[in-house]
Amino acid sequence: MPTRLSNYFLRTLREDPSDAEVIGHKLLVRAGYIRRQAPGVFAWLPIGLRVKERIERIVREEMASAGAHEVHFPALLPREPYEVTGRWDEYGEGLFRLKDRKGADMLLAPTHEEVFTLLVKDLYNSYKDLPLSIFQIQDKYRDEARPRAGLLRGREFTMKDAYSFDYTDAGLDASYQAQRDAYERIFTRLGLEYVIVQADAGAMGGSKSEEFLHPTPVGEDTFVRSSGGYAANVEAFTTAAPAARSYEGLAPAEVLATPDTPTIQTLVNRANEVHMRTDGREWTAADTLKNVVLALLHPDGTREIVVVGVPGDREVDPKRAEVAFQPAEVVAATDEDFVKYPALVKGYIGPWSSEGAVLGEESATGIRYVLDPRVADGTVWITGANTPGHHVFGLVAGRDFVADGTVEVADVQPGDPAPDGSGPVELARGMEIGHVFQLGRKYADALGLRVLDENGKLVTVTMGSYGIGITRILAIIAELNNDARGLIWPKTVAPFDIHVVATGKDPAVISVAETVVADLDENGFEVLFDDRAKVSPGVKFGDAELIGVPTIVIVGRDASEGFVELWDRRSGERTRVALGDLSAALTV
Amino acid sequence: MPTRLSNYFLRTLREDPSDAEVIGHKLLVRAGYIRRQAPGVFAWLPIGLRVKERIERIVREEMASAGAHEVHFPALLPREPYEVTGRWDEYGEGLFRLKDRKGADMLLAPTHEEVFTLLVKDLYNSYKDLPLSIFQIQDKYRDEARPRAGLLRGREFTMKDAYSFDYTDAGLDASYQAQRDAYERIFTRLGLEYVIVQADAGAMGGSKSEEFLHPTPVGEDTFVRSSGGYAANVEAFTTAAPAARSYEGLAPAEVLATPDTPTIQTLVNRANEVHMRTDGREWTAADTLKNVVLALLHPDGTREIVVVGVPGDREVDPKRAEVAFQPAEVVAATDEDFVKYPALVKGYIGPWSSEGAVLGEESATGIRYVLDPRVADGTVWITGANTPGHHVFGLVAGRDFVADGTVEVADVQPGDPAPDGSGPVELARGMEIGHVFQLGRKYADALGLRVLDENGKLVTVTMGSYGIGITRILAIIAELNNDARGLIWPKTVAPFDIHVVATGKDPAVISVAETVVADLDENGFEVLFDDRAKVSPGVKFGDAELIGVPTIVIVGRDASEGFVELWDRRSGERTRVALGDLSAALTV
Repeated sequence: MPTRLSNYFLRTLREDPSDAEVIGHKLLVRAGYIRRQAPGVFAWLPIGLRVKERIERIVREEMASAGAHEVHFPALLPREPYEVTGRWDEYGEGLFRLKDRKGADMLLAPTHEEVFTLLVKDLYNSYKDLPLSIFQIQDKYRDEARPRAGLLRGREFTMKDAYSFDYTDAGLDASYQAQRDAYERIFTRLGLEYVIVQADAGAMGGSKSEEFLHPTPVGEDTFVRSSGGYAANVEAFTTAAPAARSYEGLAPAEVLATPDTPTIQTLVNRANEVHMRTDGREWTAADTLKNVVLALLHPDGTREIVVVGVPGDREVDPKRAEVAFQPAEVVAATDEDFVKYPALVKGYIGPWSSEGAVLGEESATGIRYVLDPRVADGTVWITGANTPGHHVFGLVAGRDFVADGTVEVADVQPGDPAPDGSGPVELARGMEIGHVFQLGRKYADALGLRVLDENGKLVTVTMGSYGIGITRILAIIAELNNDARGLIWPKTVAPFDIHVVATGKDPAVISVAETVVADLDENGFEVLFDDRAKVSPGVKFGDAELIGVPTIVIVGRDASEGFVELWDRRSGERTRVALGDLSAALTV
Repeated sequence: MPTRLSNYFLRTLREDPSDAEVIGHKLLVRAGYIRRQAPGVFAWLPIGLRVKERIERIVREEMASAGAHEVHFPALLPREPYEVTGRWDEYGEGLFRLKDRKGADMLLAPTHEEVFTLLVKDLYNSYKDLPLSIFQIQDKYRDEARPRAGLLRGREFTMKDAYSFDYTDAGLDASYQAQRDAYERIFTRLGLEYVIVQADAGAMGGSKSEEFLHPTPVGEDTFVRSSGGYAANVEAFTTAAPAARSYEGLAPAEVLATPDTPTIQTLVNRANEVHMRTDGREWTAADTLKNVVLALLHPDGTREIVVVGVPGDREVDPKRAEVAFQPAEVVAATDEDFVKYPALVKGYIGPWSSEGAVLGEESATGIRYVLDPRVADGTVWITGANTPGHHVFGLVAGRDFVADGTVEVADVQPGDPAPDGSGPVELARGMEIGHVFQLGRKYADALGLRVLDENGKLVTVTMGSYGIGITRILAIIAELNNDARGLIWPKTVAPFDIHVVATGKDPAVISVAETVVADLDENGFEVLFDDRAKVSPGVKFGDAELIGVPTIVIVGRDASEGFVELWDRRSGERTRVALGDLSAALTV
């Protein structure tokens, strides 16, 4: 049945909502698709629900093609399984926790690995039962620190999450590939260009992970790619580290006075004045070792000070640091931290002092010290001497200091070599639209999901996890498909196939419009019919542009002569079409 | 596409789940429809989801016929609107409350009157916009004290809640009637017999409310009905109270010793010994006034003692008391309460003593005293004299004592007159399957939802609220449709239309089964195909009976001769049918 605007629960607004940060969100609110209820929490109005359901239908169809079975888990879950895997704590403040009337700890699930694992453990016990892929489309909860950009990062959001279960690594590869293929089909149908990049597995744990990113300059994620085919989320980029070199023949380290060198550049300048290099080259920022003090807030509530050493021409990238140190939260060290560790002389921090090691396991302070992979054994550095106004020159990694390991926190710069040798990388921005994980045996191990294999031996199941944020996708599509006048939906997800606008009050026009609508409806089109009697053509056209159904049919003065206008919302093109040709014109 | 059991995420269980209290729930778990995740919290497996979706589809269709528009609100909501209407507190422990990372109070909505009201306030401002009915099918949360009987009373459950908005009382009547009619159609399509009874509006507030009950001896609700057409939930039954009588000529009250009368019956016996009535009739329990001490726990945390006076032939009905005193919780008075109020002499409590009023506003104690409506002014009673071993005879209501009002807490007994004069009532039991409320202006008043009427005057909107518990309905259907061997779904909600069982491994049988399945599928039937190769016919039949698809087609040895068996799950009847006649036999 066609939907009549005269009687539809839809009100378009002239004003942008005050909370909206991005254009797509503003338009979704103004065009009557959603309404905000709380930060990051939205209600869906009838026309919004239609778009959401169309996206869900596409996802369901492709999940079915991938052989996944649909289930539906509760959002409200008990603490216990998340306690076993450690995520009750690891999620930190991002998890909505609550107590029931009996004082039992519960949570609003941010993702469902634990309970899917337990379900399969509950029902399956043989390799013959596998492989298995199950999915749900369900509302999830994350207490985002800064719920922003409307649906792009909500606190209650709809997600398709799928989980695969196999008993061999090859099986997991196949299940993973089936989901990955389904994702490619889904994004193609949704008209969303995508790049598949290596990603960090994050709080999921697991061994392999890829992200589907929609490349756009306004994306919140940065990714890198080489011309040779390497692509990775910047958090997952790994540094092509130099091999360890011999210390032989390297001069001993030397402490020199370097007053008034508050920045790397002033230090480099001073270095070139006071200590010429033997190879004739000048010192550059890349020859200095910058030591950055960070504080880690662990899920158990403890605060740890860690120093990271990176070449002086690089910064610590906060997103890479977040990943490198997860599940801890990374914050800047405070003055209090420095008071607590007097060995850290601000501006002159280094791993070594003339009195012995200052950082790392071998030091008296015991402060953890981790290094950028470029600081390989045998590399030579200028760095702080832990004495005000002094740096040490020619300090050799491995010989003069030993760290507690390496860490991938330094920023990635255009031209950095891809780790797979496929050439220098460039940086680009994108929006995450999907994420696939090979979890491996982490969850099955923790929760005891084992099956009997062909030889009657118990083997631990290996899993994958695959997510698409339905409401996020909808917001991204809105963000990418609009102009100054409103939304312009791709046909596959538009709330209606055709928006028919009857202009004027002439009974003949109305009568033709009714016939057109009835015909289109009969031909299987979902029609929105602007049949409002007391609304001017201008307002109707404005609403049609704002709402964004891609195909608009205007029934106006020419109706009596047997003509209507076909209006392509995207191109703006209007074509006069004879009534008899309308169906044919629309099915093209 | 037909669903193949060899490759379906479904496992039937032989053992009843340990937590199951009712047969329908046991079967839903054993047949692989649902799995428990926490008390009152369940996951839906693929076959369960199919039934749930079929029920939802029927509800959606009838909501559309009633002109209601579908929306979808979040479950996670801010405290503020519920604070304004008082429900944040009134819900007591039944509300799941939580705090977000910034400390803001939030809740998991048990019902959505507040935010629907605010949405309409946000978008509408004229009588021309009304009437409006909007609904959602959405997961709700109530922290039940005793989540029991599986899905019948869950803590997370799916509900269809609709809300109507009008600006005149007549409009509300019409909107209410449209929903009420839709409910009748829904329950008819679901095959659920129902009785519509007057109900208490409960925590909803509002002026009028009816419940749809499915009559069944195992129902948890009691309702009354008269042969003259009166029907009410026992909580909503109102007593046909006698009119006030004149005190003239009534003898003064007299205190008599009544030792050893611990029960009403011993008191009546003693009364007939010590104090003959002037009218020659014997005293009965109905002549005594029993005073029951209750403690009310108010939402603000205070504890109040209240005494209710009921005729001695009646008990205080806990459910009626719960409604009469809502939002307070009603509990029995404790020894501590009696210690605190020494005026209450256990076993001899009454409103009057020779030293003055003991209960009610006029008493020194100030204890609230409320009466059954039968204790009308001028009625004469035997009741406690507030002295151990003594009762007072001929105490006249209104003359000798004045209460703080009347209260409907006495139990309803078969034969009690219906309040509308339609004759004596009988009691029956039922299960609630739907509830419709005329909320009136309570929510619109509290939240300021007003529109301009025809005269440009602001008028407060009047609302209705209409609920069906989708998951509860499913559980009730399961509870009503089963036998010793398993579930027997009504055709309208069955997970599949036809369950085809191929018996044996004979390739000819399998081949016929495949053809049968393909034909049925092509003819639009949703088919579950038991194609498992290594499972015996006995196990397949057992699973078919447990799963409960109402129509089963057995393809067995006769297949090669062109015959299959049609098995009606409900009647148990098996009919031999020629392959060529199968389609015709199934469409009947």
